[in-house]
Amino acid sequence: MSGLDPELARRLKRNADGLVCAVVVEHSTSQVLMVAWMDDEALHRTLTTRRGTYFSRSRGKLWTKGETSGHVQHVREVRLDCDSDTVLVRVDQTGPACHTGTHTCFDGADRLLLADEPA
Amino acid sequence: MSGLDPELARRLKRNADGLVCAVVVEHSTSQVLMVAWMDDEALHRTLTTRRGTYFSRSRGKLWTKGETSGHVQHVREVRLDCDSDTVLVRVDQTGPACHTGTHTCFDGADRLLLADEPA
Repeated sequence: MSGLDPELARRLKRNADGLVCAVVVEHSTSQVLMVAWMDDEALHRTLTTRRGTYFSRSRGKLWTKGETSGHVQHVREVRLDCDSDTVLVRVDQTGPACHTGTHTCFDGADRLLLADEPA
Repeated sequence: MSGLDPELARRLKRNADGLVCAVVVEHSTSQVLMVAWMDDEALHRTLTTRRGTYFSRSRGKLWTKGETSGHVQHVREVRLDCDSDTVLVRVDQTGPACHTGTHTCFDGADRLLLADEPA
């Protein structure tokens, strides 16, 4: 049983695993830092503590970003999308957001699949 | 059988439905417009045609953004994340990105779950 506000819990459209998608954006740069997943309790803790908190699909448990790395996220704003299955989380990120050490999870030449056309 | 480059197809970590998550960002504003899903063929078409193309989980088929609304997306850049299960798609968006008529799928007072703290 999660502490999530029951009205919000009724609105959420969770996937088969009971999760909503969380897109995490850096407040100061508007860069997309990472994509993670939240169950009701992760969303509840994110909203009430302003620490980015997610559900690890591989470990099957809640995790707070930075709990081991120190690369914590202070949550500035949270929005739900029109389908109620995705949240947009604006954060102040301490240190790199990616566990590989890059600022975002999309940085690096090997992660570029299609480059912008020359002007 | 998709036309996707076999090397890229080998890298992708698809979910149980064979899909990767697609976060769509507006190139000119860096706003997150929407989140959708891609199978291999949707990614292949997005990369080769530069039109935002997705897989509809509800309809069980490919769709090109704007094919009925005219609100097409010209794709500027595509990046894969560190887990190879999410792509970040930068687009030039014609018209509103959201089917409800708002510019992004996260706009509207009823979609705000947590407001920024006063400075």
